[in-house]
Amino acid sequence: MAEDMFQWHWFIEWGTPNSAHMYGIEKILYHGRSKYQDIMVAIVKDLGKALILDGKTQSAIVDEFVYHESLVHPAMILHGKPEKVLILGGGEGATAREVLRFKSVKRVVMVDIDEEVVKVSKEYLPEWHRGAFDDPRFELIIMDGLKYVEEANEKFDVIIADLADPLEAGPAYKLYTKEYYEKLKKLLNPGGVFVTQATSPTITTFTHAVIFNTIKSVFKYASIYHVYVRSFDGVWGFVIASDTKDPRSLTPEVIDKYLAENVEGENRFYEGIIHLSMFAVPKYLRKAIESIKDIATLEKPVFMPA
Amino acid sequence: MAEDMFQWHWFIEWGTPNSAHMYGIEKILYHGRSKYQDIMVAIVKDLGKALILDGKTQSAIVDEFVYHESLVHPAMILHGKPEKVLILGGGEGATAREVLRFKSVKRVVMVDIDEEVVKVSKEYLPEWHRGAFDDPRFELIIMDGLKYVEEANEKFDVIIADLADPLEAGPAYKLYTKEYYEKLKKLLNPGGVFVTQATSPTITTFTHAVIFNTIKSVFKYASIYHVYVRSFDGVWGFVIASDTKDPRSLTPEVIDKYLAENVEGENRFYEGIIHLSMFAVPKYLRKAIESIKDIATLEKPVFMPA
Amino acid sequence: MAEDMFQWHWFIEWGTPNSAHMYGIEKILYHGRSKYQDIMVAIVKDLGKALILDGKTQSAIVDEFVYHESLVHPAMILHGKPEKVLILGGGEGATAREVLRFKSVKRVVMVDIDEEVVKVSKEYLPEWHRGAFDDPRFELIIMDGLKYVEEANEKFDVIIADLADPLEAGPAYKLYTKEYYEKLKKLLNPGGVFVTQATSPTITTFTHAVIFNTIKSVFKYASIYHVYVRSFDGVWGFVIASDTKDPRSLTPEVIDKYLAENVEGENRFYEGIIHLSMFAVPKYLRKAIESIKDIATLEKPVFMPA
Amino acid sequence: MAEDMFQWHWFIEWGTPNSAHMYGIEKILYHGRSKYQDIMVAIVKDLGKALILDGKTQSAIVDEFVYHESLVHPAMILHGKPEKVLILGGGEGATAREVLRFKSVKRVVMVDIDEEVVKVSKEYLPEWHRGAFDDPRFELIIMDGLKYVEEANEKFDVIIADLADPLEAGPAYKLYTKEYYEKLKKLLNPGGVFVTQATSPTITTFTHAVIFNTIKSVFKYASIYHVYVRSFDGVWGFVIASDTKDPRSLTPEVIDKYLAENVEGENRFYEGIIHLSMFAVPKYLRKAIESIKDIATLEKPVFMPA
Repeated sequence: MAEDMFQWHWFIEWGTPNSAHMYGIEKILYHGRSKYQDIMVAIVKDLGKALILDGKTQSAIVDEFVYHESLVHPAMILHGKPEKVLILGGGEGATAREVLRFKSVKRVVMVDIDEEVVKVSKEYLPEWHRGAFDDPRFELIIMDGLKYVEEANEKFDVIIADLADPLEAGPAYKLYTKEYYEKLKKLLNPGGVFVTQATSPTITTFTHAVIFNTIKSVFKYASIYHVYVRSFDGVWGFVIASDTKDPRSLTPEVIDKYLAENVEGENRFYEGIIHLSMFAVPKYLRKAIESIKDIATLEKPVFMPA
Repeated sequence: MAEDMFQWHWFIEWGTPNSAHMYGIEKILYHGRSKYQDIMVAIVKDLGKALILDGKTQSAIVDEFVYHESLVHPAMILHGKPEKVLILGGGEGATAREVLRFKSVKRVVMVDIDEEVVKVSKEYLPEWHRGAFDDPRFELIIMDGLKYVEEANEKFDVIIADLADPLEAGPAYKLYTKEYYEKLKKLLNPGGVFVTQATSPTITTFTHAVIFNTIKSVFKYASIYHVYVRSFDGVWGFVIASDTKDPRSLTPEVIDKYLAENVEGENRFYEGIIHLSMFAVPKYLRKAIESIKDIATLEKPVFMPA
Repeated sequence: MAEDMFQWHWFIEWGTPNSAHMYGIEKILYHGRSKYQDIMVAIVKDLGKALILDGKTQSAIVDEFVYHESLVHPAMILHGKPEKVLILGGGEGATAREVLRFKSVKRVVMVDIDEEVVKVSKEYLPEWHRGAFDDPRFELIIMDGLKYVEEANEKFDVIIADLADPLEAGPAYKLYTKEYYEKLKKLLNPGGVFVTQATSPTITTFTHAVIFNTIKSVFKYASIYHVYVRSFDGVWGFVIASDTKDPRSLTPEVIDKYLAENVEGENRFYEGIIHLSMFAVPKYLRKAIESIKDIATLEKPVFMPA
Repeated sequence: MAEDMFQWHWFIEWGTPNSAHMYGIEKILYHGRSKYQDIMVAIVKDLGKALILDGKTQSAIVDEFVYHESLVHPAMILHGKPEKVLILGGGEGATAREVLRFKSVKRVVMVDIDEEVVKVSKEYLPEWHRGAFDDPRFELIIMDGLKYVEEANEKFDVIIADLADPLEAGPAYKLYTKEYYEKLKKLLNPGGVFVTQATSPTITTFTHAVIFNTIKSVFKYASIYHVYVRSFDGVWGFVIASDTKDPRSLTPEVIDKYLAENVEGENRFYEGIIHLSMFAVPKYLRKAIESIKDIATLEKPVFMPA
């Protein structure tokens, strides 16, 4: 068998113990282990360069803009004039990159627990951060997001949670509880908006629904939205929340005008019509999500299924 | 190692030679080979019962309604009062099932080349056809879709192509050429609408774009729409076309009213707001598709990439 | 991608949680579940027809004769004139087939717990049993091997244990304890010989060594021997034991003469020179095995590693 | 799913297009590409540190001594007093290491085409070469083995071919032809011995048999021998040849005495009794090999099957 015919170096990303996506690895650019996790940067076939933490694709060059525009833009536009933005997690620097494109922004604080991920991203992922780490408006704090929220004495217009999934094994699950969201809310200025990634609505429907329910119990307005992210092997879920603004009130026309006037450069994915489609959660999924009533607390947290 | 800890029976669906989705097989209900293809009905873990032809998932119970509602409903509603409908392919019977839900429908002709697939579907996929094969309005013709179109002397209001992908190895690629679409169009009544599955816009962008371009060269109005189908491991593409009606003109309100008044039973996926989101093709994909100018002809057909 | 280029139906046989052998499945001939286990007969690519119980290859047509000749012949020849033979397990009927080739044999009792395996083997594995189940000298008893040994009031010249591995999940581990071997020994006539499969010496060295140590603690002579079995993905281990005869005393000349005179038909694998090589356990493995001193008892049994 | 439960980084070594061995990768120590091939040094689960060229395991720490002792010792002992030894290939340095253990050896020339493999081995595989590259008796020549044999004006007592398999894609197949073996033979001193790896006798029986036939057509004595090498996923084949000495004439006693007196340190695998077992090729394989009559020439070479 000719050695170039069959792919022999593979990344297998497990969705459940009984299904997985296999990708050929073209080249490993970095592989190491921090205090918190296994860190790999690789050229993955069909996805291109990708950051993989503990065997989970964080983002891939083929569609990192889909994920990062979807995470950042709705919350920023809903706010209307965000000046101070807090990012929890977001090690690659692409969330910060999108935030810094908004002309009104004066200060971005990014709190990430893992200095190694940030160092690796700085060196290996320039297409992600594109200089965001060096922007004078940007400050990096290496700290546990739990602790930061306890100690912070600063307020923000938008808070963006770009965190790892709430695995039972790790500490991240505490960042998905009612108690945590209540503390986070205290860091928001009046008119503030909160947004978080919220796991896969199709693969981990329960976890997704509980995150939504928990946030809904803390904020006046909370909405789910869904985006297909190829490198995440499916549709991805987000929750956006505010005490003053309903994200469903944004129209395509308002969004497209805002983007044209208030954001540097051009989006590749997010725009008015996409905003509508992100919030159009299919009926069978809506029903599945609505049938789940649980809320996550420190005493009874939600985990990713084993 | 305990024998129940590790899944040992697998279905690996290849997207490209360098990526694939692996699913545990719980049970094989049927496995055989017709004159045309390998046919398997299996309980696939995470997807449930599925029909797999030549190693490609045709549909799975977890979301066959997403695919079949998306294929059938937009074309039927765009027509407005479809009485006679032609289905090319569609062996499972679920496309016919959806068509027969429209109260105006008086006659459905389904032309499938592979009698075995239909027999297996009748026996093993009752959740798909739900009696469609026995509806007095339904007629099955076992024949090559190429030949049928040459010989047919009947006209239809809606034609639905639910065909295998245009593989280089098989004969199906001829059903994706300008010549074929021109013949198909002659079978349409005035005001008629044509719709076809059109491969994956993200994995096989070129093939998808060429199918669109080819249809656009034959009909006055032609539009792409995209739907996430989990069991197809991504977003799936469709093309809808007509000489008299622009599918983009349909509003959510019109669609929801039409569904309520003119369709038996309730949809699980397709509705007004979903229609909008299906037609909201992301900018980066629109650009990729628009950059491709090829048209498929018998002399220069389009194939799935090897 | 042409559908015939990439294998999509797979059997993955796990050796450990971190290594496995993958085989394409050409066709499934039978798949069901008995009271005890999952039973599959399939045409496996590169191995041919195979019996797979709970995801473990029991034997494949490409080399079942290697395993079955190696299991049966040394013990039979060491005995010299076996008339009555007990087989524990051996559902496929190939162990019985080999035993029945010895002209001196007058009675073979096969005790298997799983009637389904025997029924499936009768129908789907004629190349294995070749009529052994119908030989007038052969008797099948469907019973737990544990119970049989308690209740048997018959003695044998040779006892052959062709049993499942001692998994922690199943009951088979009790058949690998000192207590069980002591009871078995009481069923042997004077001059009797016992032989058993003994798991992989390279993958599960501890289990293999403990089986050897346990048998050695019960019989005067006990020896390990190893045979490469491709369909088991490596070298396989056996233990042969007797109170009166040392298997290492057999010479190639004696073996070849015995086979020529006392056995119907011709072997494909086992012969004098192979006997020598089977007992030539490599030094590094001998040392690894000798370093393990444990013995399996009902109170402290040995299991396959998880 | 806990991220530490499922292995996600894999090396899949294909034996045929329909079967493969999958191994978890624990850590990649080096990954690069030379002018000739992809080079990886990794900690592979269950095998330990391994050198992988173009996706094929060259040797793994768990049993590299099995392969290298088997390749080197029979030829050296058959010669009786080897002073000058030529190694073709052998980049890891372990073949040289074994040769240098023979007290009679005064000069070792190793000819390898790929300087990168040697550099990587020097740095990452000290357990393999153990200083062999620095032994004053050792000379490394970076050159194509084809060219070296044309130009060499030195003669040797033993020639050892530790080369890549004869893939159709690469140039190595020329090193497995009658023409090449004839040239090699001219580099042997009277009483000289030649040995080569000869692919898998079970997976690539045809290739293995043709290598044997070709060498047999050039030398008076030629024998096949087989060794189970776990990291090669099966039995491995070798061919040893000489015009004056029959390797089958060596007895275990002679071998063990020779090793004790003439070789530094102690073997872990090869010894007298193992020598016998290596040459005991099973009957069914002997028959399969004998049924193949082809010989490889430059005009009609032998390749590994596609």
